[in-house]
Amino acid sequence: MKKLINAVDDVLTESLRGFGRAHAGIVEVNEDPRWVCRKGGGRQGKVALISGGGSGHEPLHAGFVGTGMLDAACPGQVFTSPTPDQMLAAAERVDGGAGVLWIVKNYAGDVMNFELAAEMLEGESATVLTNDDVAVESSTHSQGRRGVAGTIVVEKIVGAAAERGDDLAACAALGERVNKASGSMGVALTSCSVPAAGKPTFELGEGEVEMGVGIHGEPGRRREAMRPAAGIVADMMEAICSDLEVTGGEDVLLLVNGMGGTPLLELYLVYEEATKACAARGITVARSLVGNYCTSLEMQGASVTLTKLDAEMTALWDAPVRTAALNWG
Amino acid sequence: MKKLINAVDDVLTESLRGFGRAHAGIVEVNEDPRWVCRKGGGRQGKVALISGGGSGHEPLHAGFVGTGMLDAACPGQVFTSPTPDQMLAAAERVDGGAGVLWIVKNYAGDVMNFELAAEMLEGESATVLTNDDVAVESSTHSQGRRGVAGTIVVEKIVGAAAERGDDLAACAALGERVNKASGSMGVALTSCSVPAAGKPTFELGEGEVEMGVGIHGEPGRRREAMRPAAGIVADMMEAICSDLEVTGGEDVLLLVNGMGGTPLLELYLVYEEATKACAARGITVARSLVGNYCTSLEMQGASVTLTKLDAEMTALWDAPVRTAALNWG
Repeated sequence: MKKLINAVDDVLTESLRGFGRAHAGIVEVNEDPRWVCRKGGGRQGKVALISGGGSGHEPLHAGFVGTGMLDAACPGQVFTSPTPDQMLAAAERVDGGAGVLWIVKNYAGDVMNFELAAEMLEGESATVLTNDDVAVESSTHSQGRRGVAGTIVVEKIVGAAAERGDDLAACAALGERVNKASGSMGVALTSCSVPAAGKPTFELGEGEVEMGVGIHGEPGRRREAMRPAAGIVADMMEAICSDLEVTGGEDVLLLVNGMGGTPLLELYLVYEEATKACAARGITVARSLVGNYCTSLEMQGASVTLTKLDAEMTALWDAPVRTAALNWG
Repeated sequence: MKKLINAVDDVLTESLRGFGRAHAGIVEVNEDPRWVCRKGGGRQGKVALISGGGSGHEPLHAGFVGTGMLDAACPGQVFTSPTPDQMLAAAERVDGGAGVLWIVKNYAGDVMNFELAAEMLEGESATVLTNDDVAVESSTHSQGRRGVAGTIVVEKIVGAAAERGDDLAACAALGERVNKASGSMGVALTSCSVPAAGKPTFELGEGEVEMGVGIHGEPGRRREAMRPAAGIVADMMEAICSDLEVTGGEDVLLLVNGMGGTPLLELYLVYEEATKACAARGITVARSLVGNYCTSLEMQGASVTLTKLDAEMTALWDAPVRTAALNWG
């Protein structure tokens, strides 16, 4: 395992320092406890959106802090849940008096710690639990489905709703709606290596792929022989479309997400294959996003996410966003 | 070698199709001959900026086509120069009557083919040759220094100048100025694998790094034992600052560029180390960019680029840009 790091214990601190410095116009970074928030903190009267989770999935979540998306993010150690004190401190910094919406990927540690934070928080809060991964029903770190790249779609769309002034109940309901309309599946060509472990999280043969892999290297649906992208993507799309009960005629957001170690050249090819699967089902790809957004360190592989869009969701997706990782409008 | 591709011969066509479809609001993609241009083509009276080179460095160059940056890009096969007929066809599509500026990375094949295109073009043209790589004086595919990530800085700053109406001579002179003010150096932790070759371009031991590697895996200054990022980055910064004759007091743009397979977590740590080297020399990091912009397929590693900024260059860097890979202002 070779990584551009210094001491294993300092990776997160040093990386977040760099992140804060590089994006000083957008974010503030606090080191103890660790949180990242919008520059200047929260806005009075606005629902505060806070997410977080283990590090190693960058730009998720800190890269999505900024106008039109998250108010704060709480990074845990690599693949390790953040703690309630981080979440509480972040909430104090960004609470604008209209309540806090926690956006939580469905992993046992995250769920437990965000629940504790919600209990300890004096003000009102609600939680959106994301579980868009259609690959498996429960997994190493989760009861029920895992939350993966669809979380970004939730953060973007609900972020825009909070920005225009939707209240806490409306933001929470919208988050549930977007999560339910979203399905994802990933594939791994290689494992990732957690810095503190110093070795690959799992073994995968030179001729094998893991279909339905989790973003921490958790097992997927099956291990199979490497084959052309067309077949791999077709199977992922079939799993997603079946889960979402796609009937044709839908407008969808198509997100092709790199796991961190796969070049854009391949991600755009995966995207092209995914659009073929949409066309074959009579689905219209109304919005697209291609890149490394919810990663697994240096894992090679990709995931595909579909979100069935309605007019409101589409308009909120298009709304302006100013973060380190997404910037438009 | 595992890649998310179908037949090796179809990689580029299929990937570009996906790219064009995902960014249909920004670009047009032509397949034969291959070029990518701004949606709607060139603008009357504006200098047309055209770049290109081998594929495998995505998002370079097609990801930088759009308002405020390139008018067109000509992608060759992976790590292979595009041909003059691509460049001529692109020029015909985007020429606005104010001349064409070719932005060419200094590799023998690119230089030769862009020269041929310039000779064949009926209208006026000029060339900016980028050679920002301070690692070696000449290399496998180049006489003189290689052009690497500094090319992006040239494309952004000259792109903004062309957008505001600077003429061909002014754009060419500005490009020379930015290139001369820029220095880069890279490090590889792993090799890349060209799809058609099917195996790693070079061998690198588990405990080794290649200091000063080229973006096609060309040899650098030396191969050395893996060590903490602090020392690696300090040596890269020393090489760059010495080449740029930094004396202290300068404002710089600091670009930390991933080679394609290194996670953002590490790139921000590299950025943090690079800012320390700037602070130690009394240099002010006035602008920053961190991410995968000039890649070498799935190579693990990073490069650092410094550009000494003056007020005009800073303002042009800040000017609005709307491309697949850069979007701000």
